[in-house]
Amino acid sequence: MLWDVVLWSGRRGARDVQRIRPRVASAALTRVDFTELVPEPISFLGRAAYIQLEAFEALARAVTTAPTLAAKEGLSSAAGVALRKHHALIAEVRRAGAEPVEVMAPFTPVTDELRAATARADWYELLLTIHITTGMLDDFFGRLAEGLPADLAARVRVILDERGTDGVLKHELERAIAEQPGLADRLALWGRSLVGDALLIARSALRAAEPPGRGDDDVEPVFTELIAEHTRRMDALGLTA
Amino acid sequence: MLWDVVLWSGRRGARDVQRIRPRVASAALTRVDFTELVPEPISFLGRAAYIQLEAFEALARAVTTAPTLAAKEGLSSAAGVALRKHHALIAEVRRAGAEPVEVMAPFTPVTDELRAATARADWYELLLTIHITTGMLDDFFGRLAEGLPADLAARVRVILDERGTDGVLKHELERAIAEQPGLADRLALWGRSLVGDALLIARSALRAAEPPGRGDDDVEPVFTELIAEHTRRMDALGLTA
Repeated sequence: MLWDVVLWSGRRGARDVQRIRPRVASAALTRVDFTELVPEPISFLGRAAYIQLEAFEALARAVTTAPTLAAKEGLSSAAGVALRKHHALIAEVRRAGAEPVEVMAPFTPVTDELRAATARADWYELLLTIHITTGMLDDFFGRLAEGLPADLAARVRVILDERGTDGVLKHELERAIAEQPGLADRLALWGRSLVGDALLIARSALRAAEPPGRGDDDVEPVFTELIAEHTRRMDALGLTA
Repeated sequence: MLWDVVLWSGRRGARDVQRIRPRVASAALTRVDFTELVPEPISFLGRAAYIQLEAFEALARAVTTAPTLAAKEGLSSAAGVALRKHHALIAEVRRAGAEPVEVMAPFTPVTDELRAATARADWYELLLTIHITTGMLDDFFGRLAEGLPADLAARVRVILDERGTDGVLKHELERAIAEQPGLADRLALWGRSLVGDALLIARSALRAAEPPGRGDDDVEPVFTELIAEHTRRMDALGLTA
């Protein structure tokens, strides 16, 4: 299956994303109705909360290693947004009568690859990692939330819709790309290498929400769309996706 | 002047704190009236905001390096408290028509020693560093705020009064001290070494707020009190201050 190349081969498979995308996109695929997916509420919340915690940690590292106080200050706001999302989702876990740490624990391995990539990133790669992965995953979890019970879905939507990380990340990246020759090429490569890690997380969440009888083929359009958005995000920075 | 030993000699002088404390405490010192001190509002806010940013960064590092997900989760709340204080103080800087980054910039050198100590701390030393220094400095800035214009003083008081960091830090430290032989001695030594760095920051803020004609002798009781509180904080953990 073509998508397995993208989803499971890790870093080396990143180049394949580009080659495969146009082919998949041109196929006559119907848009997946996210409301057909039924995430188990507590698992969904634990998963989404853990991802925000990871995003927070990455942003906090970007704050600490920021080259200027202005960048530090801007990024601290972004870190605050991720942390608020995390704690709001944790509050929903508690409201549902579950223990946040127990609920999040099963989802720590699925972010291993992304965490390892983040750990070896320099500051600009770190900013791009956060920009790309929170962009993809916030969108994805926001749409997956449509399958939750209506009142919970509405609250989760409000939580995930808070913006405030993108501005500072784009601003710092754009400035650096304009000033540092060669950075655009390096970041383009880095950005491509992240797609597999982010899709791994999305696929894991999607599999857990699939109703019986659905196969991988049914959810492919979801990934096509995520990758298309990723491409637009990279384009906006002048980077080749 | 005796206090200079404590305040300026850095890490090596930490042992002197103990030797000097009883002597100063037993002198007939009147309690300093903090309302006689007149901090320049914008500088005060920049200084206090920067210290919360430092506290946030230290807490964020504690989150990232936490040995368990439960510790990570508890510390993430504490990091959120420091970040809220930072952003609320930044909002006051903006409200006063000033630019936060410019206002904070002059105060970055005064935390150099503390930042260097934090950087070489292991996880338990890091938790103690945060517990000790935020304890001393939140108290201190809260009282120094009494000399601000009344409406601003009231708002700053509300900002700095938010609690929520101490519980998790104490909990993790107490558990580790109970479980790991030798840790109490190591942490006691570490705690003593931090006092000078925290007092350096307090003294710098105090000097900036002193009315003309006041000398260092007048503010010594402030430090006596800060150290007495520090001793109580160490005692509560079963550590020799």
